[in-house]
Amino acid sequence: MLINCVAYQEGKKLNSIPVEEISDYIQKEACFVWVALKDATTAELKQMQDEFGLHDLAVEDAQQGHQRPKIEEYGDSLFAVMHTVEFIDGELNVGEVDVFVAENYVLSTRNRTHEGFLGVRARCEKEPHHLVQGSAFVFYALMDAVVDRYFPVVVALETELETIEEQIFTKGSQRANIERLYELKRKVTILKHAVAPLLEAVGKLEGGRVPPIVANTKDYFRDVQDHLYRINTSIDSIRDTISTAIQVNLSMVSIDESEVNKRLAAWAAIFAVATAFVGVWGMNFEHMPELQWKYGYPVSLGIVAVICGYLYYRFKKSGWL
Amino acid sequence: MLINCVAYQEGKKLNSIPVEEISDYIQKEACFVWVALKDATTAELKQMQDEFGLHDLAVEDAQQGHQRPKIEEYGDSLFAVMHTVEFIDGELNVGEVDVFVAENYVLSTRNRTHEGFLGVRARCEKEPHHLVQGSAFVFYALMDAVVDRYFPVVVALETELETIEEQIFTKGSQRANIERLYELKRKVTILKHAVAPLLEAVGKLEGGRVPPIVANTKDYFRDVQDHLYRINTSIDSIRDTISTAIQVNLSMVSIDESEVNKRLAAWAAIFAVATAFVGVWGMNFEHMPELQWKYGYPVSLGIVAVICGYLYYRFKKSGWL
Amino acid sequence: MLINCVAYQEGKKLNSIPVEEISDYIQKEACFVWVALKDATTAELKQMQDEFGLHDLAVEDAQQGHQRPKIEEYGDSLFAVMHTVEFIDGELNVGEVDVFVAENYVLSTRNRTHEGFLGVRARCEKEPHHLVQGSAFVFYALMDAVVDRYFPVVVALETELETIEEQIFTKGSQRANIERLYELKRKVTILKHAVAPLLEAVGKLEGGRVPPIVANTKDYFRDVQDHLYRINTSIDSIRDTISTAIQVNLSMVSIDESEVNKRLAAWAAIFAVATAFVGVWGMNFEHMPELQWKYGYPVSLGIVAVICGYLYYRFKKSGWL
Amino acid sequence: MLINCVAYQEGKKLNSIPVEEISDYIQKEACFVWVALKDATTAELKQMQDEFGLHDLAVEDAQQGHQRPKIEEYGDSLFAVMHTVEFIDGELNVGEVDVFVAENYVLSTRNRTHEGFLGVRARCEKEPHHLVQGSAFVFYALMDAVVDRYFPVVVALETELETIEEQIFTKGSQRANIERLYELKRKVTILKHAVAPLLEAVGKLEGGRVPPIVANTKDYFRDVQDHLYRINTSIDSIRDTISTAIQVNLSMVSIDESEVNKRLAAWAAIFAVATAFVGVWGMNFEHMPELQWKYGYPVSLGIVAVICGYLYYRFKKSGWL
Amino acid sequence: MLINCVAYQEGKKLNSIPVEEISDYIQKEACFVWVALKDATTAELKQMQDEFGLHDLAVEDAQQGHQRPKIEEYGDSLFAVMHTVEFIDGELNVGEVDVFVAENYVLSTRNRTHEGFLGVRARCEKEPHHLVQGSAFVFYALMDAVVDRYFPVVVALETELETIEEQIFTKGSQRANIERLYELKRKVTILKHAVAPLLEAVGKLEGGRVPPIVANTKDYFRDVQDHLYRINTSIDSIRDTISTAIQVNLSMVSIDESEVNKRLAAWAAIFAVATAFVGVWGMNFEHMPELQWKYGYPVSLGIVAVICGYLYYRFKKSGWL
Repeated sequence: MLINCVAYQEGKKLNSIPVEEISDYIQKEACFVWVALKDATTAELKQMQDEFGLHDLAVEDAQQGHQRPKIEEYGDSLFAVMHTVEFIDGELNVGEVDVFVAENYVLSTRNRTHEGFLGVRARCEKEPHHLVQGSAFVFYALMDAVVDRYFPVVVALETELETIEEQIFTKGSQRANIERLYELKRKVTILKHAVAPLLEAVGKLEGGRVPPIVANTKDYFRDVQDHLYRINTSIDSIRDTISTAIQVNLSMVSIDESEVNKRLAAWAAIFAVATAFVGVWGMNFEHMPELQWKYGYPVSLGIVAVICGYLYYRFKKSGWL
Repeated sequence: MLINCVAYQEGKKLNSIPVEEISDYIQKEACFVWVALKDATTAELKQMQDEFGLHDLAVEDAQQGHQRPKIEEYGDSLFAVMHTVEFIDGELNVGEVDVFVAENYVLSTRNRTHEGFLGVRARCEKEPHHLVQGSAFVFYALMDAVVDRYFPVVVALETELETIEEQIFTKGSQRANIERLYELKRKVTILKHAVAPLLEAVGKLEGGRVPPIVANTKDYFRDVQDHLYRINTSIDSIRDTISTAIQVNLSMVSIDESEVNKRLAAWAAIFAVATAFVGVWGMNFEHMPELQWKYGYPVSLGIVAVICGYLYYRFKKSGWL
Repeated sequence: MLINCVAYQEGKKLNSIPVEEISDYIQKEACFVWVALKDATTAELKQMQDEFGLHDLAVEDAQQGHQRPKIEEYGDSLFAVMHTVEFIDGELNVGEVDVFVAENYVLSTRNRTHEGFLGVRARCEKEPHHLVQGSAFVFYALMDAVVDRYFPVVVALETELETIEEQIFTKGSQRANIERLYELKRKVTILKHAVAPLLEAVGKLEGGRVPPIVANTKDYFRDVQDHLYRINTSIDSIRDTISTAIQVNLSMVSIDESEVNKRLAAWAAIFAVATAFVGVWGMNFEHMPELQWKYGYPVSLGIVAVICGYLYYRFKKSGWL
Repeated sequence: MLINCVAYQEGKKLNSIPVEEISDYIQKEACFVWVALKDATTAELKQMQDEFGLHDLAVEDAQQGHQRPKIEEYGDSLFAVMHTVEFIDGELNVGEVDVFVAENYVLSTRNRTHEGFLGVRARCEKEPHHLVQGSAFVFYALMDAVVDRYFPVVVALETELETIEEQIFTKGSQRANIERLYELKRKVTILKHAVAPLLEAVGKLEGGRVPPIVANTKDYFRDVQDHLYRINTSIDSIRDTISTAIQVNLSMVSIDESEVNKRLAAWAAIFAVATAFVGVWGMNFEHMPELQWKYGYPVSLGIVAVICGYLYYRFKKSGWL
Repeated sequence: MLINCVAYQEGKKLNSIPVEEISDYIQKEACFVWVALKDATTAELKQMQDEFGLHDLAVEDAQQGHQRPKIEEYGDSLFAVMHTVEFIDGELNVGEVDVFVAENYVLSTRNRTHEGFLGVRARCEKEPHHLVQGSAFVFYALMDAVVDRYFPVVVALETELETIEEQIFTKGSQRANIERLYELKRKVTILKHAVAPLLEAVGKLEGGRVPPIVANTKDYFRDVQDHLYRINTSIDSIRDTISTAIQVNLSMVSIDESEVNKRLAAWAAIFAVATAFVGVWGMNFEHMPELQWKYGYPVSLGIVAVICGYLYYRFKKSGWL
C-alpha cells in the first residue's frame, strides 16, 4: 500500500507526485523523491523497481521479507533491512523496514509493524536545514527512528528483570521466577537478533571505507551506532544477569530444600523418640514395677516430654527448627 | 554415475555431449560444459580429471569424500565442498556435493544425498538471461539450492525446540525433556558443522580479494552468504536456548523434588504425631484413669483427629500440602 | 551551573574571564580557555556551543546525558564521555563527565557526580611545565582523575569478595553468601560498564592514527590506558571468581544437605529399630515365655540398648553421625 | 640414533651417505639430503648442527624436547615441532617430531614415538615426480603422516563418547558415566594440545606471506591445514558434547533421586497409615466396643488393607510408585 | 638498594663503576652499563633518572610498583614490567622486576622478590660471544630468567591438580576437594595475571614492527614468547580442568546423596513393615485366634522375619543396599 510519494528539492517539499512521474523527478538536479510503502505487494514493488531501477536481488529480499538486519551496497545505492520491535499486549512484535536509498531517492517499505513513520517525515520537513543534506539524511532519520524505538523495549525488559530480582531470594517463588526468567530470556533474544546485526551493519557506514552516498552524514550514523552500542550493552548485561539469576535461583531451591530437610529430620527425630519410649511401656512383661506405681503414668509422660523438649531445644539452637 | 553432461553457449543449451568431447567443447569461445555426477567412482573422476585438467589434490578430496565444507582456489579454478542436510525418517542425513568450477566448465558430484539437483538445471535453462553469466552463475545456483535446503531443517529443529519448551514447566516430563534436548543438541551440531565452515568459505567469494571467476557474480554470493548468516544465527540461537533449557529443566527437577519433600515431611509429621499419641494410650500403666472413662476412647480419637487436623491446616496454609 | 572559566597562556593562568569573552580568547596565540560546568542547563550548553562553536550532535549528547563512555572526533575537536563511579552510602553512584576539547579550549561538564574536579585544576596550575602542553594535557589530567577514582572502588569490591570467600566454606552461611555474591556481581557490572568502553575509546588516542590534538601527549594517554587495563583485569578477575564462588556455594549446599541426610538416616534407623523391637514385646500372644521371666523387662531393654548402641557405633565410624 | 641418511637428486635417491659427507652434498645443485634421527643424543644433534649449520635456538629446542607444536623461520630454513599422538594400551602417548628443513636438506628427529616414518620415505621414493619438488615436499609428507595419524585417535575418542552416550539415560550408570566422561575429557585435551597449535602454525605456510622454501608447495600445506581443521572441529565438538553430557548426567542423577524420593514417600505414607491404625486398636481403653465384636479383628485388618490399597492405587496413578 | 653497577664493552666486563660516572660511560662507543637495584628508593630512582635520562612516566611507574606486566617504548628506550612468581611456604609470592633498556644501558630494579638475578649476570659474563650483542641480550637474559621461573610453579600447580583428581571419585572427600579446587583456582589466577599480559607484550618485540633496539635479537624474544605460550596453554588447561572438576565434584555429591537416600529408603521400608506387623498383633481384639495358638509367637516372628528378609533381598538385588 502506498503511503506517501513526495519530491523534495534543496531541503524543501515540492509536492506529492504520482508514482509514474518518479523516474522524471529523480533526473532533476538537487532533487530527491521519498516514497513510503506499507506491506507492499509484489506488483507495487515491481513498479518501484521499474521507476527507480532497483537491483533484482534487493527487490527479491524485500518481497520475501524475514531478512536479517543488514545494509548492502548495490553500485551507488544502498539497501537496508531493519527490524522494528514493539510491545503489543505484552508480547514482542517484530516487524521489518526495508529502505532503498540512492542520491536522489529514498524508498521505504514496512511490514508487520504497528506504528508508522509519518512522524519522521513531519520532523524532516520541519527542519529544511537538515533535509538539504538529501536522501542520506532521510535514511539516517528513518534508522534513528527505528533505533529509538528499541529503548522503551530495553527499559521494559530491564524493569521485568528487576521485578524478578526482587523475588529471587523470597522463599517459595522459585518456580515462578524460573518461568519468568526463561520467558525474559526469550524476549531478550528476539531483541538481540534485531540489534546485533544492525550494529554490525551500521559500522560500515561510519568507519573505514564509507559508501559515497553517506560520506557527508558519517557523524549521524556514528550517533546511531552509538545508540545501538548502548542498547546492545544493555541487552548483553540483561542476558548475563539472567544466566546468573538462573544459577542463583537453583541455589535458592537447594538451600530451601536443605532447610526443609533439616526441619523434617528434627521433627521426625522428636516423634520417633516419643514413639519408641511409649512403646517400651506398652510391652507386656509381667515384671515391670513402674507400671504399678501410682504416678507411673504421669511420670512416664513427663520423661517423654522432657526428652522431646530437650531435643526441641537442641534443634532450635542449631537452627534446624 | 553420470547424470548429465551438457554444453551451453551464451546462456542457451547447445546439447548433451559425450564425455569424451568435453575437452573439445571447453576450448570454444563463450561456451561452458556442465557435468553432473552422482556417487562418482574413481574411474569416473579420473576421466573427468583428464577431460577438465583438474588438480590432483582436489580430485583426491572428491574421491575420499567426508571433507569439511570449503572453497579452494587452484589457479583459475575453484573447488567447493558443500554438505547437504536432509531429514530422512526423522534422522538427519548428511550428504556431500563437490563442485569444480572454472571459466568454461562446472562439474558437480553428489554423494550420499537423497534429493538431486535436476531442478537447478531446469531453472537455469529457463532463465537464459541469467545463465549467460556463465559457469559462475551455475555455481551460485547449485550453492543456493544446497543452502535453501537448510531452511526447512532449521524450521524443523526450531519446531522441535518449541515443542520441548511447552513441556518444560510441566511436572513429571523432565526425564523426557532432557532426552529430547540432548537429541536436539546432537542434530543442531550436525547442521552447524555443515553451515559454519561454508559461511566462512563463502566470505572469500564476496569480500576483499575475490577469485576472478566470480568477480561478476559477487552480489549473488553475498546473497547466499546472507542466507547462511541467517541460518547460522538461528542455529546459535537454538543452541543457546538448549543450554538454558537444560539448566531450567534441572531447576524444575529440583523444585519438583523440593515440593515432594515438603509433602512427604508434612504427611510424615501428621502420622508420626498420631502414632505417638495412640502409643501413649497403649501403655500398660495400672493407673491411667482415662482408660476407664466411658467416653475415653472416642475422646482420645477426637484429640488425635484435632491435632492432626490442625497440622494439616497449618501445612496446607504454608503450601506444603 | 558555571564553576570556573579561566584563560591560560603558555602554561600560566591569565585570569578568570566572563563567558562572553571566551570566543575572543580562543582566537589568541598559545592561549586556551578551560571552562567547568556542573549539571549544565540547556541554556548554558547553548551559550557554550555558540562561544566555542561545538558540534550539534555532541551538544545533544551532553544535554541528554546517560551516554556510554566514548571519545568522538568532530573535525579538529574531541568529545569525550566518561563515567564517574563513587561509593555513596554503600551503593555505587554513577555520574557522567563530558569533555569538549580542541586546540584552544577545554569544556568539561559533570552530572550526578558527588566529588568535583577542582583538585585537578589546582594541580595543573601548580605545574606550568606540564600545563604548557596545552588543552590536551588538561584533557589527560581530567581523564586521569576520573580513572584514578575507580581504584578505591575496585579495592572495595575486592575486599567484599574476600569477605565472602572467608565465609564460603562455613556451614549455614550459604543463603547469605549467595545474596552477597549476587549483589556484588551487580556492582561489578556497573563498574564494568564505566571502564570497558572507556578502555576501548582511549585506545584510539594511543595507537594507530591518533587525533592531531593529542599527538604530543600520546604517552600520557597510554598511561591512562594502562591504568584502565589494570582495573579491567581486576574486574574480570572478580567476575570470574564470583562465577566460581556461586558454583562452589551450590556445591557446599549439596554437601551440607548430603551430610544432614546421612545423619537423619542414621538416627531414623536407630529409633526405627528400637520401635520395632519394643513393638514385638507389646504383642498379645498368650505363649510368650520371656514375658513371664523375672528379668525379662530389663533384659529386653538391654537388648534394645545394645543393638542401638551397636548401630550408633557403626554410624559414628562411617562418619554418618 | 641415526636411522637413515640419504642424498636425493632430481627426485631420485642417489645413495646413503655417511654423516660426515652431508656438508659436501648440500652444496650440490638440485640435490638434498634427508636425515632421520630417533631419540637423538646431544652429541648427534651437535654433529648435525655442524654439518647443516643449524641455528642455536632451534637445536636447543630439539635437545630439550617438550616444545609446543610450532613452525619457526630461521633465515632461509624452517624449524618445525609436531606432536605425535598414539594409543598405546588404551592410554594416549604423546611423542615429538622435530624437523629442520631448508632448500637442500631435511633433518627429522623423533622422540618418545612408537611408530616410525620409514613408510613416508618409501612412499616418497616411489613417487619421483613428487619428490622432484625437493625438501619442501618431504617436509609436507612428514607432516601429512603425523596429521593422518590423528584421525584414528579422533575416531577412537568419538566411539568412546558414543558408548557413553548410549548409557547416559540408563538408570544407575551415572557414577560410571561421569568417571568415563572425565577421563575422555582428559584425553581430548591431550589431543587438542597437539592439534590446535599446529593448525595455527601451518596457517603461516599457506596464506599471506609464505616462507620462500614452501612457496611452490602451498597447496599441499593447505591440504594438511584442511585435515587439521577437520580434526580440530571434531575435537571441539567432542568437548562441547562432553560438557553437555556432564550437565545431562547431573540432571539424570537428580531425576533418579527425585523418583526414589517419591517412591520412598509413597511407601512411608502407606506404612505410617497402617501403623497409626493398628496403634489405635492397641490402646487399652476399657470401653472400645469393636474389640469385643466377633469379627472385629478381620474387619480392622480389612479397613487397614482398604486404606493402604487405596493409597497404593492413588500413588500408582500419579506415577510415584 | 644498589646491587651492582658494571660497564661492559664488546661483550667483556670493563669494571664496576660508581653511579656518578654512569652518564660518562653511556657516551662511549660499543659500551653499555648494566645496573641492578633492589627495592629502590625514590632517591635512588631519581639519581638513575638523572644519569640515564629516563622518562618521567616510566620512573613514576617503577616508583609506584604494582603495575601490570607490559613493555612500553619511550623514544629509543624500552620500559618493561615483569612479575616474578615464587612459591614461599606454599603460598604464591608475586614480585616485580622493572627493566629500563636502551642502546647503552640496562637498568633493572626488583621489588618484593625472594630470589635475585645475580646468576643471570654471571652467565652473561661467561658468554662474551652472546653479550657482545649488547643491552638487548641482557634484556632477553633477564626476561628469560623471569619466565623460566614460572615453569616450576606451573608444575607444582599441575601436581596439585593431579592430587585432587585422584580424590575426585572417592566417596566422602567432596568437601575437601571443593576447597582445594577453589584454592588452586585462586593460585592459577595469580599466575595467569603474571603470564598473559607479558605474553601479549612480548609479541611486540617479535612480530610486525619491532623496536630497533631488539631488531637483532628478535629470535631470542620469539623463544621467550614460545615459553610463555607453553605456560599460558598449561594455565588455561588447568583452569579448564578445574571448572570441569568442580562440576564433576558436584555430580559426585549428588550421586553419593542419591545412594544414601536409597539406602535410607530401603531400611526405613524394612523397619516400617516390621513395626506395622507387630502392631497388628498388639491390637486388643478379643477374637484373635492366633494369639492363643501355642506357636503363635514364634510363627509371627517368623512371618515378620521372612517379609523383612524378602525385602532385604529385593533391595540388595536392585542395588539399593
